[in-house]
Amino acid sequence: MPESNRRFILRSRPEGRITSETFELVEDAIPEIKVGEALVRTLWISLDPANRGWLNDTPSYVPPVGIGEVMRGGALGRVVASQNDAYREGQLVMGLLGWQEWAVASDAAPLLPLVEVPGVSVGAYLGVLGINGLTAWVGLKDIGRPQPGETVVVSAAAGAVGSVAAQIATIGGARVVGIAGGREKCALLTERLGLDAAVDRKASDWHDQLVAATSDGIDVDFENVGGEIMDAVFARLNLRARVVLCGLISAYNDPVPPPGPRAFANLLIQRVRLQGFIVFDHLDRMGEAVAELSGWMGEGKLEQLETVVEGFEQLPTAINMLFDGTNIGKLVLRVAD
Amino acid sequence: MPESNRRFILRSRPEGRITSETFELVEDAIPEIKVGEALVRTLWISLDPANRGWLNDTPSYVPPVGIGEVMRGGALGRVVASQNDAYREGQLVMGLLGWQEWAVASDAAPLLPLVEVPGVSVGAYLGVLGINGLTAWVGLKDIGRPQPGETVVVSAAAGAVGSVAAQIATIGGARVVGIAGGREKCALLTERLGLDAAVDRKASDWHDQLVAATSDGIDVDFENVGGEIMDAVFARLNLRARVVLCGLISAYNDPVPPPGPRAFANLLIQRVRLQGFIVFDHLDRMGEAVAELSGWMGEGKLEQLETVVEGFEQLPTAINMLFDGTNIGKLVLRVAD
Repeated sequence: MPESNRRFILRSRPEGRITSETFELVEDAIPEIKVGEALVRTLWISLDPANRGWLNDTPSYVPPVGIGEVMRGGALGRVVASQNDAYREGQLVMGLLGWQEWAVASDAAPLLPLVEVPGVSVGAYLGVLGINGLTAWVGLKDIGRPQPGETVVVSAAAGAVGSVAAQIATIGGARVVGIAGGREKCALLTERLGLDAAVDRKASDWHDQLVAATSDGIDVDFENVGGEIMDAVFARLNLRARVVLCGLISAYNDPVPPPGPRAFANLLIQRVRLQGFIVFDHLDRMGEAVAELSGWMGEGKLEQLETVVEGFEQLPTAINMLFDGTNIGKLVLRVAD
Repeated sequence: MPESNRRFILRSRPEGRITSETFELVEDAIPEIKVGEALVRTLWISLDPANRGWLNDTPSYVPPVGIGEVMRGGALGRVVASQNDAYREGQLVMGLLGWQEWAVASDAAPLLPLVEVPGVSVGAYLGVLGINGLTAWVGLKDIGRPQPGETVVVSAAAGAVGSVAAQIATIGGARVVGIAGGREKCALLTERLGLDAAVDRKASDWHDQLVAATSDGIDVDFENVGGEIMDAVFARLNLRARVVLCGLISAYNDPVPPPGPRAFANLLIQRVRLQGFIVFDHLDRMGEAVAELSGWMGEGKLEQLETVVEGFEQLPTAINMLFDGTNIGKLVLRVAD
């Protein structure tokens, strides 16, 4: 175990992509805990598109990370010392530990004790059985509500949330079309995850592919990306379609917001219901979601796709993989086992 | 009574505005009715933004008016002869009579018998107590659901639907801000209809006016217009705001759809629910709506604003008043009394 606490501190707000100027790696002493606190060793750090948004000094659903503060981030860790009855030594916990090797839990900054499921990899707790799984599950259950036979389009379908959403929709009997970047990801969607069709957004004929794959129109759009492909999806929405507005990753690095979808009027003509949602509003349903999701995993109907990066110091580089689309499935960074 | 049937026939589809090339005025014989039909004399024709959309040969919620067909339009008329038990001579009826002086009702093309309310002007049946009133009522009751004290913004607030929506929201105890074009309309909104504030979209400082009038943000957007003002409204939506997507008149004359709202991402960040709706899905609620709306009219809480144009032959000119914003409230054309 390290005898110091390395931490990534926000040095300057990025205009576009995160660069080597964005964070500073500092080395502090391991925190000493007081009564009511628990010391947690960070094991796995979750890398999520939302991390990028937290660096912008603009109004959002949480305050931005402050200059000089440790970078905010979801992670999984192990309690190594506790002076709080809610935590016991050796326990696995999950929450906003931040980009640091050691963190402190307290009643004011609580962490979620992990309910370990036999036969499930540790990384899955940050993905399918964690925030990403809950995001996909709530988005489909509460907003998208696909009926058997309906056509569901999932953007970033090879990503952490998209791959779960696409599998849940498939389990429910919908016709599922995934949008992803590159032939490899598209093959994975149809061959390994059992989707009905995949659209390669990097191919010059992506629009033709989308039209061919959704010849009866689109009933549910599980939207993670935004931009011109969302626009093309909006133009193909059916009567009473639902848009689960979960993410808009294509614009997260843009200093100025791009124009919105030209097919906006189709939301009116087709009586579309669009609902923006942020998973943190739905944490109370984590138990219910994990029960169903882990059941499907046990039956072999649902699997975690993941890309693991090794080494704490790789964090600022690894996060950009999400925007380059070089990760497949959940992107996690392993700090220690 | 005229002894012929003048009718406006669609001659060519307009690219932008309706022009003198769009329709042809033809004169036919008065239809002879058969068993199962009723002959109706057109009295008042309703002019609505939706009329323009029906001229475009693009997929929409109804098929476009065909070249050579009589222009589709809502109207109010009187039954002058009937061979159908559903209609009796002298009865007032409402429905898609079209732009013609005489129309035929049948079971295949039914009209709605009018429930006359004492003390209400005939024009109100096409406005507050007709389709426009139902639109405003359903949009607020089912989608917007403003709570007392919440801030509701209504665009085209001096228009046929907007003026009713703004008054209903005021009756319900919301803080209501109307957007309208010109000082005269704005004064009418605050002084005559009792809105809390009005924003003049034609003033160079319209954005400052909007900010000042919605200092606590916006909880409900009853959207009739679209374009840059909708974009500014979207940027000010509060947590869990609702967008009643009722109309997008600013683009109805555009051959190519304009870019969508740049503040689109705010729908995600603020967990906004947006619902497109078309009033024709809700005709079954007309009775309930008219009961409540006519009650408010009787109590003096709700009034019909209207602009009346005289003369059947004025139809193609009068319709453009909606896009120039020269009408106040419901725009109707009086054919006969």
